Amino acid sequence: MNKTILLNNRPKGKPSESDFKFVDEETKDLPSGAIIVATKYVSVDPYLRGRMRDEKSYIPPFELGKPITSTIVAEVLESKNDAFSKGDNVTGMLPWKEKQVISEDKLKEIRKVDGEQAPLSAYLGILGMTGLTAFFGLTDIGKPKEGETIVVSGAAGAVGSVVGQIAKIRGLKVVGIAGTDEKVEMLTSDFGFDEGINYKTTDNMKEALKKACPNGIDIYFDNVGGDISDAVLFHINKFARIINCGAIAVYNETSVPKSISVQPFLIKNSALMQGFIVGNYQDRFPEGIKQLSQWLAAGKLKHEETIVEGFKNIPQAFIDLFDGKNKGKMVVKV
Amino acid sequence: MNKTILLNNRPKGKPSESDFKFVDEETKDLPSGAIIVATKYVSVDPYLRGRMRDEKSYIPPFELGKPITSTIVAEVLESKNDAFSKGDNVTGMLPWKEKQVISEDKLKEIRKVDGEQAPLSAYLGILGMTGLTAFFGLTDIGKPKEGETIVVSGAAGAVGSVVGQIAKIRGLKVVGIAGTDEKVEMLTSDFGFDEGINYKTTDNMKEALKKACPNGIDIYFDNVGGDISDAVLFHINKFARIINCGAIAVYNETSVPKSISVQPFLIKNSALMQGFIVGNYQDRFPEGIKQLSQWLAAGKLKHEETIVEGFKNIPQAFIDLFDGKNKGKMVVKV
Repeated sequence: MNKTILLNNRPKGKPSESDFKFVDEETKDLPSGAIIVATKYVSVDPYLRGRMRDEKSYIPPFELGKPITSTIVAEVLESKNDAFSKGDNVTGMLPWKEKQVISEDKLKEIRKVDGEQAPLSAYLGILGMTGLTAFFGLTDIGKPKEGETIVVSGAAGAVGSVVGQIAKIRGLKVVGIAGTDEKVEMLTSDFGFDEGINYKTTDNMKEALKKACPNGIDIYFDNVGGDISDAVLFHINKFARIINCGAIAVYNETSVPKSISVQPFLIKNSALMQGFIVGNYQDRFPEGIKQLSQWLAAGKLKHEETIVEGFKNIPQAFIDLFDGKNKGKMVVKV
Repeated sequence: MNKTILLNNRPKGKPSESDFKFVDEETKDLPSGAIIVATKYVSVDPYLRGRMRDEKSYIPPFELGKPITSTIVAEVLESKNDAFSKGDNVTGMLPWKEKQVISEDKLKEIRKVDGEQAPLSAYLGILGMTGLTAFFGLTDIGKPKEGETIVVSGAAGAVGSVVGQIAKIRGLKVVGIAGTDEKVEMLTSDFGFDEGINYKTTDNMKEALKKACPNGIDIYFDNVGGDISDAVLFHINKFARIINCGAIAVYNETSVPKSISVQPFLIKNSALMQGFIVGNYQDRFPEGIKQLSQWLAAGKLKHEETIVEGFKNIPQAFIDLFDGKNKGKMVVKV
């Protein structure tokens, strides 16, 4: 028997355990050309909340009563395909199952990963979606220039911490925003940010940003949306670039969220806001992985992970994202 | 004696006549190298409202008790400069005065215009700031592609009517939004738009846009901001471009205006919003004027003007912009 996790209800507001359902399923026989894998690491990510809504987006919504999927690292237990051998480690977008058969036609969406080059969990983070998100969002949309000032929200998170480190490599002044003193401390001591702001203990974000960014803000890498992003608008410079990567502050709202009207700020500063998903850069992933691996090997990039143990704790680890309980990439080890 | 119009108060909400003050000033002697001009046409534009606030923006605010300035066409009455002759017509950013001396060092900001190539008022509109705004905003930020759908707000205005016509030349489906049935009628009958929507008589903008744009919206040229722009967000396509040109709907608000949070819409559609001012393209004005003049001469572009007569009516003409009393470019003939 083999456990799998289904979407039981579409969450209203913040997700809860009851939105998920564990079921046992029979282990299937292995058809020719297919492989069986055992899940080792599961990525839980804020964007999954969007897929739990029944609405048009960049990827189809999850279906009720069907398994949730996310990026997983798994080990091949048995193979009837020449391209994969028992013991290989693979990664791809897969359902939340302890074990699963991957049929021949689905194997093109799976790639092998090397556990000796980097820890396996890194392929769910700094060398996976979150690292690539940071890299392409910052370099392709942000177009950072030496001496500029960047503000990063969700700065201690899996994407934000990498954004700030790349920006430092590129010679920018880097200010990070996070939600606990411990995280803010980590920004400067572990990740080399110039300054950190704890938005939960700061009375006036506008003033705090003004003080931290005396030359104004040239780039804002936005992982959160909401009030923090509103405050940033008051300090953007001419030709500022705002990279809309995530909006975790408003993902759980049950009505259409409201914010300050951005248009007048964009007009008076000739500024840009651009949303993106990492999938837009699929053709350039090898370029990104190569650069990130080099920086990682050279000790220029650190990555932080919060690793939760146990298949049964996947839903709670996901829910904890919305309370900011992770530092860096949140991963479940099975 | 010579009349000039000063900023008397910074308007609170919608501007009123009492925010302006007419004063008489002595005519000055003409220093060597300078010219004297008589104002013939004065441009009144929504963006001037922004300059009446005491806040940092792309151009400095107007000073209290000092003349308002805007783009003007004037005739040279007397010249002590070899580059200009009596009878020449010139245009530039000038104070609201019946007559004025332009000193030698300011003459570099003035250029001659040819009243035989186009009516003089055209240099305040289709061959001036508004035409160039439409041209560069649409082509440089919007990057229109044949077969795409564009929505234009403030579509019967000086910028919007040109945007829609250029988009038709480029082979797009063009939907315009305006505030009276007469203007909406003009969009399709005079300017060749495919469809028009009267936002004042439409109960549900979201539905009206859905019906008018069955293939979704690829480009939104936004002259208004506010509720109309919120409704557009629900229909944007992947990789949509939103051009923030103006936000007349919120310029008169006395507190910081709120709108739907744009971030989730931009993220899920990998969409772009970009503010701009035409001055960013100063180096490329000759290219824009050449293309617009060609289209104008070929009868491919029509321009609509609302011409109000009389120097004393300049403030009221400006105020009337905020009630949508203009069709096309609002100009005061002195």
